[in-house]
Amino acid sequence: MLVNGARGNLISIRDRGLLYGDGIFRTFPAINGQAQHWPLHYQKLQHDCAALVLTCPDEITLLDELKPLLVAHPDGVFKIIVTRGIGQRGYAPPCPADFTHIWDVTPRPIYTKDYASTGIRARVCQLRLAAQPLLAGIKHLNRLENVLAAAEKTDDECAEGLLLDANDCVIEGIRSNVFLVQQGALVTPDLSRCGVAGVQRARIMAWAQQHNIALQVREVKLAELKLADEVFFTNSVISIWPLRALENRCWHDFPMTQKIRLALMGEAP
Amino acid sequence: MLVNGARGNLISIRDRGLLYGDGIFRTFPAINGQAQHWPLHYQKLQHDCAALVLTCPDEITLLDELKPLLVAHPDGVFKIIVTRGIGQRGYAPPCPADFTHIWDVTPRPIYTKDYASTGIRARVCQLRLAAQPLLAGIKHLNRLENVLAAAEKTDDECAEGLLLDANDCVIEGIRSNVFLVQQGALVTPDLSRCGVAGVQRARIMAWAQQHNIALQVREVKLAELKLADEVFFTNSVISIWPLRALENRCWHDFPMTQKIRLALMGEAP
Repeated sequence: MLVNGARGNLISIRDRGLLYGDGIFRTFPAINGQAQHWPLHYQKLQHDCAALVLTCPDEITLLDELKPLLVAHPDGVFKIIVTRGIGQRGYAPPCPADFTHIWDVTPRPIYTKDYASTGIRARVCQLRLAAQPLLAGIKHLNRLENVLAAAEKTDDECAEGLLLDANDCVIEGIRSNVFLVQQGALVTPDLSRCGVAGVQRARIMAWAQQHNIALQVREVKLAELKLADEVFFTNSVISIWPLRALENRCWHDFPMTQKIRLALMGEAP
Repeated sequence: MLVNGARGNLISIRDRGLLYGDGIFRTFPAINGQAQHWPLHYQKLQHDCAALVLTCPDEITLLDELKPLLVAHPDGVFKIIVTRGIGQRGYAPPCPADFTHIWDVTPRPIYTKDYASTGIRARVCQLRLAAQPLLAGIKHLNRLENVLAAAEKTDDECAEGLLLDANDCVIEGIRSNVFLVQQGALVTPDLSRCGVAGVQRARIMAWAQQHNIALQVREVKLAELKLADEVFFTNSVISIWPLRALENRCWHDFPMTQKIRLALMGEAP
Protein backbone atom coordinates (compact mmCIF):
# COMPACT_ATOMS: atom_id res chain seq x y z
CA MET A 1 0.00 0.00 0.00
CA LEU A 2 1.17 3.51 -0.82
CA VAL A 3 0.00 6.84 0.56
CA ASN A 4 1.22 9.81 -1.48
CA GLY A 5 3.92 7.64 -2.99
CA ALA A 6 5.31 6.36 0.31
CA ARG A 7 4.78 2.87 1.71
CA GLY A 8 2.12 2.97 4.38
CA ASN A 9 -1.45 2.12 5.13
CA LEU A 10 -2.51 5.07 7.27
CA ILE A 11 -4.00 8.49 6.59
CA SER A 12 -4.79 11.45 8.79
CA ILE A 13 -8.11 11.53 10.65
CA ARG A 14 -8.36 15.04 9.21
CA ASP A 15 -8.27 13.86 5.61
CA ARG A 16 -11.38 15.10 3.84
CA GLY A 17 -11.76 11.69 2.27
CA LEU A 18 -12.75 10.43 5.72
CA LEU A 19 -14.49 13.56 7.00
CA TYR A 20 -16.76 14.16 4.01
CA GLY A 21 -16.12 11.40 1.48
CA ASP A 22 -14.46 14.20 -0.47
CA GLY A 23 -12.66 12.15 -3.09
CA ILE A 24 -12.96 9.55 -5.81
CA PHE A 25 -11.67 6.06 -6.52
CA ARG A 26 -11.19 3.41 -9.14
CA THR A 27 -10.86 -0.37 -8.92
CA PHE A 28 -9.31 -2.60 -11.57
CA PRO A 29 -7.73 -6.03 -11.72
CA ALA A 30 -4.27 -7.01 -12.87
CA ILE A 31 -3.76 -10.18 -14.88
CA ASN A 32 -0.24 -11.57 -15.15
CA GLY A 33 1.17 -8.27 -13.97
CA GLN A 34 -0.83 -6.18 -16.46
CA ALA A 35 -3.21 -3.53 -15.17
CA GLN A 36 -6.37 -4.16 -17.17
CA HIS A 37 -7.48 -1.20 -19.29
CA TRP A 38 -5.33 1.28 -17.41
CA PRO A 39 -5.69 4.05 -20.02
CA LEU A 40 -9.47 4.00 -19.63
CA HIS A 41 -9.21 3.94 -15.86
CA TYR A 42 -6.82 6.87 -15.85
CA GLN A 43 -9.07 8.78 -18.24
CA LYS A 44 -12.03 8.18 -15.90
CA LEU A 45 -9.90 9.17 -12.89
CA GLN A 46 -9.15 12.48 -14.63
CA HIS A 47 -12.81 12.94 -15.49
CA ASP A 48 -14.02 12.28 -11.95
CA CYS A 49 -11.31 14.48 -10.41
CA ALA A 50 -12.35 17.30 -12.74
CA ALA A 51 -15.99 16.84 -11.77
CA LEU A 52 -15.11 17.47 -8.11
CA VAL A 53 -12.39 20.04 -8.92
CA LEU A 54 -9.72 17.75 -7.48
CA THR A 55 -6.22 17.82 -8.94
CA CYS A 56 -5.63 14.48 -10.63
CA PRO A 57 -2.23 12.93 -9.93
CA ASP A 58 -0.27 12.87 -13.18
CA GLU A 59 -0.13 9.60 -15.06
CA ILE A 60 3.65 9.22 -14.98
CA THR A 61 3.67 9.45 -11.19
CA LEU A 62 0.89 6.91 -10.88
CA LEU A 63 2.52 4.49 -13.32
CA ASP A 64 5.85 4.78 -11.49
CA GLU A 65 4.08 3.82 -8.28
CA LEU A 66 1.98 1.13 -9.90
CA LYS A 67 4.83 -0.72 -11.63
CA PRO A 68 6.45 -2.29 -8.52
CA LEU A 69 3.01 -3.02 -7.08
CA LEU A 70 2.17 -5.00 -10.22
CA VAL A 71 5.36 -7.00 -9.84
CA ALA A 72 4.52 -7.80 -6.23
CA HIS A 73 0.83 -8.49 -6.92
CA PRO A 74 0.57 -9.61 -10.55
CA ASP A 75 -3.03 -10.81 -10.12
CA GLY A 76 -4.37 -8.45 -7.51
CA VAL A 77 -7.28 -6.06 -7.51
CA PHE A 78 -5.92 -2.53 -7.43
CA LYS A 79 -7.64 0.46 -5.93
CA ILE A 80 -6.58 4.06 -6.37
CA ILE A 81 -8.19 6.71 -4.17
CA VAL A 82 -7.73 10.46 -4.62
CA THR A 83 -9.01 12.76 -1.86
CA ARG A 84 -8.91 16.50 -1.31
CA GLY A 85 -6.46 15.91 1.54
CA ILE A 86 -6.34 17.90 4.74
CA GLY A 87 -7.90 21.31 5.09
CA GLN A 88 -9.12 23.71 7.71
CA ARG A 89 -12.29 22.79 9.63
CA GLY A 90 -15.49 23.04 7.59
CA TYR A 91 -16.97 21.96 4.29
CA ALA A 92 -15.39 24.61 2.06
CA PRO A 93 -12.54 23.09 0.05
CA PRO A 94 -9.11 24.38 1.09
CA CYS A 95 -7.26 26.37 -1.51
CA PRO A 96 -4.66 25.24 -2.40
CA ALA A 97 -5.31 21.71 -1.23
CA ASP A 98 -2.68 19.03 -0.59
CA PHE A 99 -4.34 16.13 -2.32
CA THR A 100 -3.95 12.61 -1.01
CA HIS A 101 -3.60 9.64 -3.29
CA ILE A 102 -3.66 6.08 -2.06
CA TRP A 103 -2.89 2.72 -3.65
CA ASP A 104 -4.26 -0.48 -2.18
CA VAL A 105 -4.14 -4.05 -3.46
CA THR A 106 -6.32 -6.98 -2.45
CA PRO A 107 -6.43 -10.56 -3.78
CA ARG A 108 -8.64 -11.10 -6.82
CA PRO A 109 -11.92 -12.58 -5.57
CA ILE A 110 -12.72 -16.05 -6.85
CA TYR A 111 -16.24 -16.31 -8.23
CA THR A 112 -17.84 -19.54 -9.33
CA LYS A 113 -17.48 -19.99 -13.12
CA ASP A 114 -21.25 -20.48 -13.26
CA TYR A 115 -21.80 -16.77 -12.74
CA ALA A 116 -20.27 -16.01 -16.13
CA SER A 117 -21.69 -19.01 -17.98
CA THR A 118 -25.18 -19.76 -16.65
CA GLY A 119 -25.77 -16.39 -15.06
CA ILE A 120 -26.66 -15.04 -11.64
CA ARG A 121 -29.77 -14.52 -9.60
CA ALA A 122 -30.29 -10.88 -8.66
CA ARG A 123 -32.76 -9.11 -6.41
CA VAL A 124 -34.40 -5.72 -6.65
CA CYS A 125 -33.02 -3.58 -3.83
CA GLN A 126 -35.50 -1.85 -1.58
CA LEU A 127 -33.34 1.26 -1.38
CA ARG A 128 -34.02 3.75 -4.15
CA LEU A 129 -31.12 5.84 -5.38
CA ALA A 130 -31.41 9.57 -4.82
CA ALA A 131 -31.15 11.86 -7.84
CA GLN A 132 -28.15 14.21 -7.64
CA PRO A 133 -27.13 15.30 -11.15
CA LEU A 134 -23.96 17.00 -9.85
CA LEU A 135 -22.60 13.69 -8.56
CA ALA A 136 -24.18 11.28 -11.04
CA GLY A 137 -21.75 9.09 -12.96
CA ILE A 138 -18.84 9.88 -10.64
CA LYS A 139 -17.21 7.12 -8.59
CA HIS A 140 -16.88 9.26 -5.47
CA LEU A 141 -16.41 8.22 -1.86
CA ASN A 142 -20.02 8.90 -0.81
CA ARG A 143 -21.18 5.31 -1.11
CA LEU A 144 -23.61 4.88 1.78
CA GLU A 145 -26.44 4.06 -0.59
CA ASN A 146 -24.44 1.12 -1.92
CA VAL A 147 -23.61 0.03 1.63
CA LEU A 148 -27.25 0.14 2.72
CA ALA A 149 -28.38 -1.69 -0.41
CA ALA A 150 -25.73 -4.40 0.09
CA ALA A 151 -26.81 -4.75 3.73
CA GLU A 152 -30.48 -5.37 2.95
CA LYS A 153 -31.78 -8.61 4.41
CA THR A 154 -32.79 -11.09 1.74
CA ASP A 155 -33.86 -14.71 1.62
CA ASP A 156 -32.51 -15.33 -1.85
CA GLU A 157 -28.91 -16.07 -2.56
CA CYS A 158 -28.25 -13.26 -4.93
CA ALA A 159 -24.93 -12.34 -6.48
CA GLU A 160 -26.03 -8.79 -7.25
CA GLY A 161 -28.74 -6.30 -6.36
CA LEU A 162 -30.52 -4.12 -8.90
CA LEU A 163 -30.81 -0.48 -7.90
CA LEU A 164 -33.74 1.64 -9.04
CA ASP A 165 -34.46 5.31 -8.54
CA ALA A 166 -37.57 6.73 -6.91
CA ASN A 167 -39.45 6.53 -10.24
CA ASP A 168 -38.96 2.75 -10.71
CA CYS A 169 -36.25 3.37 -13.25
CA VAL A 170 -33.42 0.85 -13.32
CA ILE A 171 -30.05 2.55 -12.76
CA GLU A 172 -27.36 -0.07 -12.07
CA GLY A 173 -26.26 -2.97 -9.91
CA ILE A 174 -24.91 -2.30 -6.41
CA ARG A 175 -21.36 -2.65 -7.78
CA SER A 176 -21.93 -2.90 -11.52
CA ASN A 177 -23.58 -1.39 -14.56
CA VAL A 178 -26.45 -3.08 -16.33
CA PHE A 179 -27.35 -3.68 -19.98
CA LEU A 180 -30.48 -5.02 -21.68
CA VAL A 181 -30.52 -6.91 -24.96
CA GLN A 182 -33.66 -6.29 -27.01
CA GLN A 183 -33.89 -7.94 -30.42
CA GLY A 184 -30.17 -7.72 -30.96
CA ALA A 185 -29.87 -4.13 -29.77
CA LEU A 186 -28.43 -2.88 -26.48
CA VAL A 187 -30.01 -0.55 -23.95
CA THR A 188 -28.30 0.78 -20.83
CA PRO A 189 -29.78 3.17 -18.29
CA ASP A 190 -29.18 6.88 -18.47
CA LEU A 191 -26.92 7.86 -15.54
CA SER A 192 -27.36 11.61 -15.62
CA ARG A 193 -29.26 11.71 -12.32
CA CYS A 194 -27.69 8.89 -10.31
CA GLY A 195 -25.43 5.87 -10.63
CA VAL A 196 -21.77 5.35 -11.50
CA ALA A 197 -20.66 5.26 -15.13
CA GLY A 198 -18.05 2.51 -15.14
CA VAL A 199 -15.21 1.80 -17.52
CA GLN A 200 -16.65 -1.55 -18.68
CA ARG A 201 -19.91 0.19 -19.53
CA ALA A 202 -17.93 2.62 -21.68
CA ARG A 203 -16.05 -0.26 -23.34
CA ILE A 204 -19.29 -2.04 -24.20
CA MET A 205 -20.78 1.16 -25.59
CA ALA A 206 -17.69 1.70 -27.75
CA TRP A 207 -17.75 -1.93 -28.92
CA ALA A 208 -21.42 -1.64 -29.93
CA GLN A 209 -20.67 1.46 -31.96
CA GLN A 210 -17.71 -0.20 -33.68
CA HIS A 211 -19.84 -3.23 -34.58
CA ASN A 212 -22.90 -1.31 -35.72
CA ILE A 213 -24.98 -2.69 -32.89
CA ALA A 214 -27.75 -0.28 -32.00
CA LEU A 215 -27.35 1.07 -28.46
CA GLN A 216 -29.62 3.36 -26.56
CA VAL A 217 -28.80 5.18 -23.33
CA ARG A 218 -32.13 6.10 -21.82
CA GLU A 219 -34.65 5.67 -19.02
CA VAL A 220 -35.38 1.98 -18.39
CA LYS A 221 -38.27 0.91 -16.17
CA LEU A 222 -38.07 -2.30 -14.17
CA ALA A 223 -41.00 -3.70 -16.15
CA GLU A 224 -39.09 -3.18 -19.38
CA LEU A 225 -35.99 -4.90 -18.00
CA LYS A 226 -38.04 -7.96 -17.16
CA LEU A 227 -39.21 -8.16 -20.77
CA ALA A 228 -35.70 -7.96 -22.22
CA ASP A 229 -34.28 -10.93 -24.17
CA GLU A 230 -31.12 -10.79 -22.06
CA VAL A 231 -29.82 -8.69 -19.20
CA PHE A 232 -26.26 -8.53 -17.94
CA PHE A 233 -24.16 -6.84 -15.26
CA THR A 234 -20.63 -5.63 -15.79
CA ASN A 235 -17.75 -4.14 -13.86
CA SER A 236 -13.98 -4.29 -14.06
CA VAL A 237 -13.59 -7.07 -11.53
CA ILE A 238 -16.50 -9.40 -12.37
CA SER A 239 -16.25 -8.85 -16.13
CA ILE A 240 -19.77 -9.72 -17.40
CA TRP A 241 -22.43 -11.77 -15.63
CA PRO A 242 -25.70 -12.61 -17.38
CA LEU A 243 -28.88 -12.34 -15.34
CA ARG A 244 -30.52 -15.74 -14.86
CA ALA A 245 -33.31 -14.88 -12.43
CA LEU A 246 -34.94 -11.75 -11.04
CA GLU A 247 -38.07 -12.10 -8.94
CA ASN A 248 -40.49 -14.22 -11.01
CA ARG A 249 -38.62 -13.86 -14.30
CA CYS A 250 -36.01 -16.35 -15.55
CA TRP A 251 -33.65 -16.27 -18.51
CA HIS A 252 -31.88 -19.30 -20.01
CA ASP A 253 -29.87 -18.28 -23.06
CA PHE A 254 -27.50 -15.38 -23.34
CA PRO A 255 -26.06 -15.43 -26.87
CA MET A 256 -25.47 -11.70 -27.17
CA THR A 257 -24.12 -11.41 -23.64
CA GLN A 258 -21.65 -14.22 -24.26
CA LYS A 259 -20.64 -12.69 -27.58
CA ILE A 260 -19.82 -9.40 -25.83
CA ARG A 261 -18.07 -11.18 -22.99
CA LEU A 262 -15.84 -13.11 -25.35
CA ALA A 263 -15.16 -10.09 -27.52
CA LEU A 264 -14.31 -7.74 -24.67
CA MET A 265 -13.11 -9.83 -21.79
CA GLY A 266 -11.94 -13.15 -23.17
CA GLU A 267 -12.63 -16.14 -20.94
CA ALA A 268 -10.75 -14.61 -18.02
CA PRO A 269 -11.08 -13.49 -15.39
CA MET B 1 -6.69 13.24 19.10
CA LEU B 2 -7.74 9.72 19.98
CA VAL B 3 -8.39 6.75 17.70
CA ASN B 4 -10.19 3.90 19.46
CA GLY B 5 -9.13 5.31 22.80
CA ALA B 6 -5.43 5.56 21.99
CA ARG B 7 -3.55 8.77 21.25
CA GLY B 8 -3.06 9.10 17.53
CA ASN B 9 -4.25 10.93 14.47
CA LEU B 10 -4.14 8.17 11.86
CA ILE B 11 -6.56 5.55 10.61
CA SER B 12 -6.25 2.68 8.17
CA ILE B 13 -6.73 3.36 4.47
CA ARG B 14 -9.09 0.36 4.63
CA ASP B 15 -11.40 2.00 7.14
CA ARG B 16 -14.89 2.08 5.69
CA GLY B 17 -15.23 5.65 6.91
CA LEU B 18 -12.77 6.60 4.18
CA LEU B 19 -13.76 4.02 1.55
CA TYR B 20 -17.50 4.63 1.62
CA GLY B 21 -18.21 7.40 4.13
CA ASP B 22 -19.65 4.55 6.18
CA GLY B 23 -19.96 6.32 9.50
CA ILE B 24 -21.41 9.25 11.38
CA PHE B 25 -20.13 12.22 13.35
CA ARG B 26 -21.00 14.96 15.77
CA THR B 27 -19.48 18.36 16.46
CA PHE B 28 -19.92 20.37 19.65
CA PRO B 29 -18.07 23.11 21.49
CA ALA B 30 -16.70 23.11 24.99
CA ILE B 31 -16.94 26.22 27.12
CA ASN B 32 -14.73 26.47 30.20
CA GLY B 33 -14.05 22.76 30.03
CA GLN B 34 -17.73 21.81 29.75
CA ALA B 35 -18.94 19.86 26.72
CA GLN B 36 -22.06 21.75 25.66
CA HIS B 37 -25.23 19.66 25.68
CA TRP B 38 -23.35 16.39 25.77
CA PRO B 39 -26.43 14.29 26.70
CA LEU B 40 -28.25 15.47 23.57
CA HIS B 41 -25.20 14.85 21.40
CA TYR B 42 -24.77 11.37 22.78
CA GLN B 43 -28.46 10.66 22.26
CA LYS B 44 -28.16 11.79 18.64
CA LEU B 45 -24.97 9.73 18.22
CA GLN B 46 -26.92 6.66 19.38
CA HIS B 47 -29.78 7.51 17.05
CA ASP B 48 -27.56 7.96 14.01
CA CYS B 49 -25.55 4.81 14.77
CA ALA B 50 -28.79 2.86 15.00
CA ALA B 51 -29.96 4.28 11.67
CA LEU B 52 -26.86 2.85 9.97
CA VAL B 53 -26.76 -0.28 12.16
CA LEU B 54 -23.44 0.81 13.65
CA THR B 55 -22.59 -0.14 17.22
CA CYS B 56 -22.50 3.08 19.23
CA PRO B 57 -19.56 3.34 21.65
CA ASP B 58 -20.91 3.29 25.19
CA GLU B 59 -21.25 6.58 26.99
CA ILE B 60 -18.94 5.74 29.89
CA THR B 61 -16.09 4.93 27.49
CA LEU B 62 -16.63 8.15 25.56
CA LEU B 63 -16.82 10.29 28.70
CA ASP B 64 -13.63 8.68 30.06
CA GLU B 65 -11.87 9.63 26.84
CA LEU B 66 -13.45 13.07 26.67
CA LYS B 67 -12.58 14.17 30.21
CA PRO B 68 -8.80 14.65 29.73
CA LEU B 69 -9.40 16.20 26.32
CA LEU B 70 -11.66 18.81 27.95
CA VAL B 71 -8.95 19.62 30.46
CA ALA B 72 -6.41 20.07 27.66
CA HIS B 73 -8.80 21.98 25.39
CA PRO B 74 -11.36 23.68 27.64
CA ASP B 75 -12.70 25.86 24.82
CA GLY B 76 -12.20 23.67 21.78
CA VAL B 77 -14.59 22.36 19.20
CA PHE B 78 -14.88 18.59 19.64
CA LYS B 79 -15.64 16.13 16.94
CA ILE B 80 -16.51 12.48 17.45
CA ILE B 81 -16.57 10.17 14.44
CA VAL B 82 -17.84 6.58 14.49
CA THR B 83 -17.17 4.40 11.44
CA ARG B 84 -17.88 0.77 10.59
CA GLY B 85 -14.13 0.13 10.77
CA ILE B 86 -12.24 -2.26 8.54
CA GLY B 87 -13.93 -5.02 6.60
CA GLN B 88 -13.36 -7.30 3.64
CA ARG B 89 -13.43 -5.71 0.16
CA GLY B 90 -16.85 -4.63 -1.01
CA TYR B 91 -19.87 -2.64 0.09
CA ALA B 92 -21.51 -5.29 2.28
CA PRO B 93 -20.95 -4.46 5.96
CA PRO B 94 -18.63 -6.89 7.73
CA CYS B 95 -20.20 -8.94 10.47
CA PRO B 96 -19.05 -8.58 13.17
CA ALA B 97 -17.39 -5.23 12.50
CA ASP B 98 -14.61 -3.65 14.51
CA PHE B 99 -15.94 -0.16 14.77
CA THR B 100 -13.62 2.82 14.77
CA HIS B 101 -14.23 5.85 16.95
CA ILE B 102 -12.21 9.01 16.67
CA TRP B 103 -11.93 12.16 18.76
CA ASP B 104 -10.57 15.36 17.29
CA VAL B 105 -10.35 18.86 18.74
CA THR B 106 -9.89 22.14 16.90
CA PRO B 107 -9.85 25.73 18.19
CA ARG B 108 -13.24 27.39 18.50
CA PRO B 109 -13.67 29.63 15.45
CA ILE B 110 -14.02 33.32 16.17
CA TYR B 111 -16.99 34.88 14.40
CA THR B 112 -17.70 38.57 14.36
CA LYS B 113 -20.25 39.48 17.07
CA ASP B 114 -22.33 41.14 14.35
CA TYR B 115 -23.41 37.77 13.04
CA ALA B 116 -25.37 37.08 16.21
CA SER B 117 -26.64 40.62 16.76
CA THR B 118 -27.35 42.22 13.38
CA GLY B 119 -27.52 38.99 11.40
CA ILE B 120 -25.86 37.51 8.38
CA ARG B 121 -26.21 37.68 4.65
CA ALA B 122 -26.92 34.28 3.08
CA ARG B 123 -27.17 33.05 -0.48
CA VAL B 124 -29.33 30.44 -2.10
CA CYS B 125 -27.08 27.55 -3.15
CA GLN B 126 -27.31 26.38 -6.74
CA LEU B 127 -26.91 22.75 -5.69
CA ARG B 128 -30.19 21.06 -4.84
CA LEU B 129 -30.15 18.38 -2.18
CA ALA B 130 -31.07 14.89 -3.33
CA ALA B 131 -33.94 13.11 -1.59
CA GLN B 132 -32.83 9.95 0.22
CA PRO B 133 -35.29 9.14 3.01
CA LEU B 134 -33.04 6.35 4.38
CA LEU B 135 -30.24 8.83 5.10
CA ALA B 136 -32.27 11.96 5.83
CA GLY B 137 -31.69 13.53 9.22
CA ILE B 138 -28.52 11.53 9.88
CA LYS B 139 -25.17 13.28 10.26
CA HIS B 140 -23.27 10.70 8.23
CA LEU B 141 -19.91 10.99 6.48
CA ASN B 142 -21.36 11.32 2.94
CA ARG B 143 -21.11 15.08 2.80
CA LEU B 144 -20.14 15.81 -0.80
CA GLU B 145 -23.30 17.84 -1.33
CA ASN B 146 -22.26 20.17 1.47
CA VAL B 147 -18.74 20.38 0.04
CA LEU B 148 -19.99 21.26 -3.44
CA ALA B 149 -22.44 23.81 -2.04
CA ALA B 150 -19.72 25.43 0.08
CA ALA B 151 -17.44 25.55 -2.99
CA GLU B 152 -19.91 27.41 -5.20
CA LYS B 153 -18.51 30.61 -6.59
CA THR B 154 -20.34 33.67 -5.33
CA ASP B 155 -19.90 37.43 -5.52
CA ASP B 156 -21.60 38.11 -2.23
CA GLU B 157 -19.87 37.78 1.09
CA CYS B 158 -22.19 35.29 2.66
CA ALA B 159 -21.78 33.63 6.04
CA GLU B 160 -24.12 30.76 5.14
CA GLY B 161 -25.76 29.14 2.13
CA LEU B 162 -29.37 28.07 2.02
CA LEU B 163 -29.93 24.58 0.62
CA LEU B 164 -33.11 23.70 -1.23
CA ASP B 165 -34.28 20.40 -2.67
CA ALA B 166 -35.23 19.80 -6.29
CA ASN B 167 -38.78 21.10 -5.59
CA ASP B 168 -37.66 24.53 -4.35
CA CYS B 169 -38.27 23.50 -0.77
CA VAL B 170 -35.95 24.99 1.82
CA ILE B 171 -34.14 22.25 3.76
CA GLU B 172 -31.29 23.74 5.79
CA GLY B 173 -28.11 25.79 5.72
CA ILE B 174 -24.88 24.21 4.45
CA ARG B 175 -23.81 23.64 8.06
CA SER B 176 -26.91 24.61 10.03
CA ASN B 177 -30.64 24.17 10.44
CA VAL B 178 -33.06 26.95 9.62
CA PHE B 179 -36.19 28.34 11.31
CA LEU B 180 -38.80 30.85 10.19
CA VAL B 181 -40.74 33.12 12.52
CA GLN B 182 -44.28 33.84 11.32
CA GLN B 183 -46.50 35.99 13.53
CA GLY B 184 -44.89 34.70 16.68
CA ALA B 185 -44.94 31.05 15.60
CA LEU B 186 -42.01 28.93 14.44
CA VAL B 187 -41.69 26.86 11.29
CA THR B 188 -38.78 24.59 10.44
CA PRO B 189 -38.40 22.41 7.34
CA ASP B 190 -39.39 18.78 7.35
CA LEU B 191 -36.18 16.71 7.10
CA SER B 192 -37.67 13.35 6.22
CA ARG B 193 -36.26 13.35 2.69
CA CYS B 194 -32.93 15.19 3.05
CA GLY B 195 -30.96 17.36 5.45
CA VAL B 196 -29.39 16.84 8.86
CA ALA B 197 -31.51 17.12 12.02
CA GLY B 198 -29.18 18.89 14.43
CA VAL B 199 -29.18 19.02 18.21
CA GLN B 200 -29.82 22.78 18.34
CA ARG B 201 -32.86 22.30 16.12
CA ALA B 202 -34.15 19.73 18.61
CA ARG B 203 -33.46 22.09 21.53
CA ILE B 204 -35.37 24.91 19.87
CA MET B 205 -38.28 22.60 19.12
CA ALA B 206 -38.36 21.45 22.75
CA TRP B 207 -38.14 25.04 23.99
CA ALA B 208 -41.06 26.08 21.77
CA GLN B 209 -43.18 23.25 23.15
CA GLN B 210 -42.30 24.15 26.74
CA HIS B 211 -43.24 27.78 26.15
CA ASN B 212 -46.42 27.12 24.22
CA ILE B 213 -45.02 28.63 21.07
CA ALA B 214 -46.66 27.12 18.03
CA LEU B 215 -44.16 25.19 15.92
CA GLN B 216 -44.70 23.47 12.61
CA VAL B 217 -42.34 21.00 10.94
CA ARG B 218 -43.35 20.96 7.32
CA GLU B 219 -42.50 21.73 3.71
CA VAL B 220 -41.28 25.33 3.31
CA LYS B 221 -40.87 26.89 -0.12
CA LEU B 222 -38.22 29.53 -0.71
CA ALA B 223 -40.95 32.06 -1.52
CA GLU B 224 -42.50 31.47 1.91
CA LEU B 225 -39.15 31.90 3.67
CA LYS B 226 -38.71 35.29 2.05
CA LEU B 227 -42.06 36.39 3.45
CA ALA B 228 -41.24 35.32 7.00
CA ASP B 229 -41.01 37.95 9.77
CA GLU B 230 -37.67 36.51 10.85
CA VAL B 231 -35.41 33.70 9.72
CA PHE B 232 -32.47 32.23 11.62
CA PHE B 233 -29.78 29.58 11.27
CA THR B 234 -28.58 27.42 14.12
CA ASN B 235 -25.95 24.84 14.88
CA SER B 236 -23.93 23.81 17.92
CA VAL B 237 -20.91 25.91 17.06
CA ILE B 238 -22.44 29.12 15.71
CA SER B 239 -25.35 29.10 18.18
CA ILE B 240 -28.03 31.24 16.43
CA TRP B 241 -27.53 33.71 13.60
CA PRO B 242 -30.44 35.81 12.32
CA LEU B 243 -30.78 36.24 8.58
CA ARG B 244 -30.26 39.86 7.55
CA ALA B 245 -30.26 39.56 3.76
CA LEU B 246 -31.10 36.92 1.17
CA GLU B 247 -31.14 37.92 -2.50
CA ASN B 248 -33.41 40.98 -2.72
CA ARG B 249 -34.99 40.55 0.72
CA CYS B 250 -33.71 42.26 3.88
CA TRP B 251 -34.65 41.89 7.53
CA HIS B 252 -33.86 44.41 10.29
CA ASP B 253 -35.36 43.27 13.57
CA PHE B 254 -35.15 39.85 15.12
CA PRO B 255 -37.03 40.01 18.44
CA MET B 256 -38.10 36.35 18.48
CA THR B 257 -34.72 35.13 17.25
CA GLN B 258 -32.93 37.08 19.98
CA LYS B 259 -35.37 35.83 22.61
CA ILE B 260 -34.61 32.23 21.64
CA ARG B 261 -30.90 32.91 21.44
CA LEU B 262 -30.83 34.38 24.92
CA ALA B 263 -33.04 31.66 26.34
CA LEU B 264 -31.11 28.76 24.85
CA MET B 265 -27.58 29.92 24.27
CA GLY B 266 -26.95 32.88 26.54
CA GLU B 267 -24.71 35.57 25.11
CA ALA B 268 -21.89 33.13 24.45
CA PRO B 269 -20.45 31.75 22.34
